[in-house]
Amino acid sequence: MTGDKGIVIIGCGAGGGTAAQFARKTDRKTSITIFEKEKYGQYSKCGLPYTISGDIPEIKKLIEYDEEWFKKAKVDLFLDTKVEKIDTKNNIVFAKKGNKTIQKPYNFLILCTGATPSIPPIKNIDNDGVFVLRTIDDAEKITKNINRNKKAVIVGAGLIGLEMADSLFNKGMKVSIVEALPSILPNNLDSDMAKIVTEHFPQDINIYTNYIATNVKNKNNWISKVIIKNNETGEEKSIDADMLIIATGTRLNVELAKSIGCKIGKTGGIVVNNKSETSIENVYAVGDCTEYIDFITAKPCLVGLGSITVRQGMAAGINAAGGNYGLLKGLLNTSTSEFFGIEIASVGPITSELGDFTVVSGRFNGSSLPSYFPGGKPVSIKVSVDKYTGMIMNAQCIGDKAAQRINTFACAIIGELDIETFRKLETAYAPSIAPTLDAVTLVCDIISRKLKRN
Amino acid sequence: MTGDKGIVIIGCGAGGGTAAQFARKTDRKTSITIFEKEKYGQYSKCGLPYTISGDIPEIKKLIEYDEEWFKKAKVDLFLDTKVEKIDTKNNIVFAKKGNKTIQKPYNFLILCTGATPSIPPIKNIDNDGVFVLRTIDDAEKITKNINRNKKAVIVGAGLIGLEMADSLFNKGMKVSIVEALPSILPNNLDSDMAKIVTEHFPQDINIYTNYIATNVKNKNNWISKVIIKNNETGEEKSIDADMLIIATGTRLNVELAKSIGCKIGKTGGIVVNNKSETSIENVYAVGDCTEYIDFITAKPCLVGLGSITVRQGMAAGINAAGGNYGLLKGLLNTSTSEFFGIEIASVGPITSELGDFTVVSGRFNGSSLPSYFPGGKPVSIKVSVDKYTGMIMNAQCIGDKAAQRINTFACAIIGELDIETFRKLETAYAPSIAPTLDAVTLVCDIISRKLKRN
Repeated sequence: MTGDKGIVIIGCGAGGGTAAQFARKTDRKTSITIFEKEKYGQYSKCGLPYTISGDIPEIKKLIEYDEEWFKKAKVDLFLDTKVEKIDTKNNIVFAKKGNKTIQKPYNFLILCTGATPSIPPIKNIDNDGVFVLRTIDDAEKITKNINRNKKAVIVGAGLIGLEMADSLFNKGMKVSIVEALPSILPNNLDSDMAKIVTEHFPQDINIYTNYIATNVKNKNNWISKVIIKNNETGEEKSIDADMLIIATGTRLNVELAKSIGCKIGKTGGIVVNNKSETSIENVYAVGDCTEYIDFITAKPCLVGLGSITVRQGMAAGINAAGGNYGLLKGLLNTSTSEFFGIEIASVGPITSELGDFTVVSGRFNGSSLPSYFPGGKPVSIKVSVDKYTGMIMNAQCIGDKAAQRINTFACAIIGELDIETFRKLETAYAPSIAPTLDAVTLVCDIISRKLKRN
Repeated sequence: MTGDKGIVIIGCGAGGGTAAQFARKTDRKTSITIFEKEKYGQYSKCGLPYTISGDIPEIKKLIEYDEEWFKKAKVDLFLDTKVEKIDTKNNIVFAKKGNKTIQKPYNFLILCTGATPSIPPIKNIDNDGVFVLRTIDDAEKITKNINRNKKAVIVGAGLIGLEMADSLFNKGMKVSIVEALPSILPNNLDSDMAKIVTEHFPQDINIYTNYIATNVKNKNNWISKVIIKNNETGEEKSIDADMLIIATGTRLNVELAKSIGCKIGKTGGIVVNNKSETSIENVYAVGDCTEYIDFITAKPCLVGLGSITVRQGMAAGINAAGGNYGLLKGLLNTSTSEFFGIEIASVGPITSELGDFTVVSGRFNGSSLPSYFPGGKPVSIKVSVDKYTGMIMNAQCIGDKAAQRINTFACAIIGELDIETFRKLETAYAPSIAPTLDAVTLVCDIISRKLKRN
């Protein structure tokens, strides 16, 4: 089926590496080649903030599958190699390693070109002392410049920005966070939930929401101040800074895909279906460079999570190698993280993105344990449902075991359970583990009452 | 609707107390009366082992709703009061408190008569030094007799038996556990999973599976030895013992229900439907004295969990007070506990009880965290599915966050998800919280491959 030209994968991140692994599992013989522009094998980008905090003591630990591993799996991995051109007429990839050009014919192509940090228009942003975090090299640069009691400014209060805030704070730095939107974690939490998170932040952390960074000031060839401006009032502030981290999202690496005519979607990502097929036959795409469908809204949706990238990688690898594997009909965007000891997790779009639906939301603040058992931790859950069908559309959780609690909602969403069924779920109870009625169902009782009143 | 005679509830455990609360929420005015034979308000029986271990420092903390609370809720709670007779012709309950007889007419009756520890036929079982654990008084008796370095024998390796083993071990006692069946936790875990649990037990704990206790020997009017006998070989052993705890299950308190003609099911429990209605109009029953339907097998099934009792109490209370609330079509028996630092949880019948189905099972032993993140804890999950439909029928988990992981399977079961859908669930991922592919879906990949091979 796959012929002797085999599979060529561009990019050896979580998407490309996983695709190679599953292609190999599916077809023991076909040729598999990966071109990777960085100098490392498959490593976890999500782990980078934890190398900075020191939780992961050695950065090379992040490399989950190295050259040696791929060699054993009979996958030809070219590191430090940039793909320059794809000839779709003759099915050849042209790559460059140093001065050497490599020509590799293919039957199936998997694009895992990822994304690059997007840098907002800040004056003098090229100054020394300004960092992004996307690669091992980026993380090493930041680590070298950490100084106890010095000041870090982080622009962007998404997951990575806050993970960085936590890491630098734990390294003894003074941390300020600047976010253009009115609340932190704008892609993960509704503003009322985000407020609960910030209330738990250490007091020394300065959070500037509704602010954008406009200018960077220098002293002795190194950053010394960041000028920020209020979005609404125009008011300007100057924050002392010895380090500026830009964590304002990414721009997608879709140039190669465009050059061969892959359809690019409204979001700017390569359009793929549930099998990770692009609009061009035998060309797949995986990960941060792609756009798929949101499970709830059925609208196009960027792929921005490592967990989804891995699942797409499985699909692309299996299908390119002659197998058959499709993802669910849409993305849940189940995600989690923790900062300053607070675990957060969410599934589905934030509530303000459910504008096409009439939504009823409920929030419950409770404890992880029965009241009589010492050591219960706070758990807050917010859930939104469609008013007419009662279907669960999103859930957000802050506190104890937030990720696993959110997984249960993720399952409810793919099972298309309505709130009346879900709230009767028999959850596991034991005094030292969880109450007889867990927060996951108690929040649904609140919504059920609201639905009945309406 | 409810008339002025109101609701009479017999028993103020989790079932009766919850029924009263929800009846009051549903109808602010109706008269509600509870007769309780013990001298305490509604307390958590499941918390008792943790008062013995000292995790719950004061036993009275277990009383979640005391006399005062019910008084404020305008519920007449008679403690230390035994119901002697029910006149269903005139709808009157006759109860006795001390020498005083109380006659209370009712429109709706809720039976929450619970269960009593069942004592196996052991010779000299009436000796001093033999205990059961069902009430606050039982727990206080055990606590008084704990002696560091003395020897405790526990008969019955179910959840309560093992919770007691853990509590007494942590109090410095030498602990032996005797179980008649071939493996511990016979109602919760398949034998291969139970083996994983025992492998994690401290070496000093002696476990005798396939043994029954046959005789108790005395010295100075106190227990000194327990004689146990192997079920298969007949071999006898003598275990030194300063304390014997009987944790071999319960016999149901259904005498009152029988006296008024409530239908008793094959399991010996009062037959109730999803609204907790018995076979007699306007008579409800809740909790350990009842029998409902198993969600998976559709067979009659005893109610033995506090979490289910609370849900039935809600149903009985709401319905008796004129509302409308039904449980799901069957019980999942989602349960959890922890002993010796190992969390276990399960949902659905053990696999050997799925005999009417053709079942395919898979087991996965993994880690709670990605391999590159320090501190990952073991997680083992076993799942069984129906071979022909792929429907998930049970799940058992040992290790990190077992309860919440099992809740996700519980949700999959009520959503009637098949394994092919569930294994594509997008679980929450973050390096310090969970891997890109969690054990909950990885175990399903194993089953999926088995199904395809078959």
